[in-house]
Amino acid sequence: MSQKSYISNSVIRRLPRYYRFMGELQKEGTAKISSAELSVRMKLTASQIRQDLNCFGGFGQQGYGYNVAELRREIGDIIGVERRVGTILLGAGNLGRAITTYFDFPKYGCELIGIFDADPKLENTEIAGVSVSSMLKLRTFCEQKSPEIAVLCIPKESAGVVSKVLVGCGVKAFWNFTHYDINLHFDDIIVENVHLGDSLLTLAYNVNNTNK
Amino acid sequence: MSQKSYISNSVIRRLPRYYRFMGELQKEGTAKISSAELSVRMKLTASQIRQDLNCFGGFGQQGYGYNVAELRREIGDIIGVERRVGTILLGAGNLGRAITTYFDFPKYGCELIGIFDADPKLENTEIAGVSVSSMLKLRTFCEQKSPEIAVLCIPKESAGVVSKVLVGCGVKAFWNFTHYDINLHFDDIIVENVHLGDSLLTLAYNVNNTNK
Repeated sequence: MSQKSYISNSVIRRLPRYYRFMGELQKEGTAKISSAELSVRMKLTASQIRQDLNCFGGFGQQGYGYNVAELRREIGDIIGVERRVGTILLGAGNLGRAITTYFDFPKYGCELIGIFDADPKLENTEIAGVSVSSMLKLRTFCEQKSPEIAVLCIPKESAGVVSKVLVGCGVKAFWNFTHYDINLHFDDIIVENVHLGDSLLTLAYNVNNTNK
Repeated sequence: MSQKSYISNSVIRRLPRYYRFMGELQKEGTAKISSAELSVRMKLTASQIRQDLNCFGGFGQQGYGYNVAELRREIGDIIGVERRVGTILLGAGNLGRAITTYFDFPKYGCELIGIFDADPKLENTEIAGVSVSSMLKLRTFCEQKSPEIAVLCIPKESAGVVSKVLVGCGVKAFWNFTHYDINLHFDDIIVENVHLGDSLLTLAYNVNNTNK
């Protein structure tokens, strides 16, 4: 499989969706699908789908369509789903607990190997089988276990200091639930922001400004 | 204030971010800010900022900049932050509980007026002061209270049926945490998808495909 060297961000953002749709088709027992059928299902044009998948080396055969299981496996390989990237979560409040409990990290290519919180009362408690450690142990833990991803569920006010420590310890990517704009402060760091507040405000705007 | 009749989706998506930044500036005691200063802070060009805000009627004065409190209030008005849109949450599992507990709905222009779950054991329990009702009471509740927004935290398998009922009851917008693609099934419905799984997969892709 030969990937193009530059792949646009919007193509990358669609990749998990292809992966998800292929999983659903597999569950339904569909063995192959044409780009035309897939386009109806995903509300993308068939040519868009062909273009997207061509960025990753192309998987389809003219006149046959895509082999669902194979396409899913190959997209999974590209994403690195089997790799289990070492991941730590910072902040064991409501949101942090929910993400730990609700989220099946290995399904998304990650392994949650540690949780850290500033509250000493939480130390050594467990959430979904993962033990909570004191923030004071963060540096040592990172030196020993080299996590690559940090999930930030801490208050915005602590996010600046904590992200600086984490970058210093070699963390290279953030799943950022805080409203702290990490990417304004570090250049080479990978950030996925989940700005739930912005998302709900956008919804409120659209509700209040549609059919006026 | 005269809004343009067509405002692009990307401008709308930046609006909550302006609102948030104005709130921070206000907290810091900043009374006015130039588009140049704001551009450094938000990593947008000054001309982009002027263009964005012009879509909503323009707020700045040449040579003076923006009055922070006023801009925040006006953006808040445009979003409809004070309107408190009636909102219900479906699915009181880990994710639904977390969102209810963690999320200050009124801050985002919404009021959580009901929670519904299929599990009869949860009926009449409370989460963050809101009582959980049986799914069987959903229709009657909607007829009486006319919620406009539904937060979907239910399993994907139920999302098709439940969203159809909700649309039938007059719900016009979804904050959708499931992987069910609501907008593939309804045309006039407003949807904000929070696809946490897709977001984490995108992060994993970027971690696994950067500096290779």
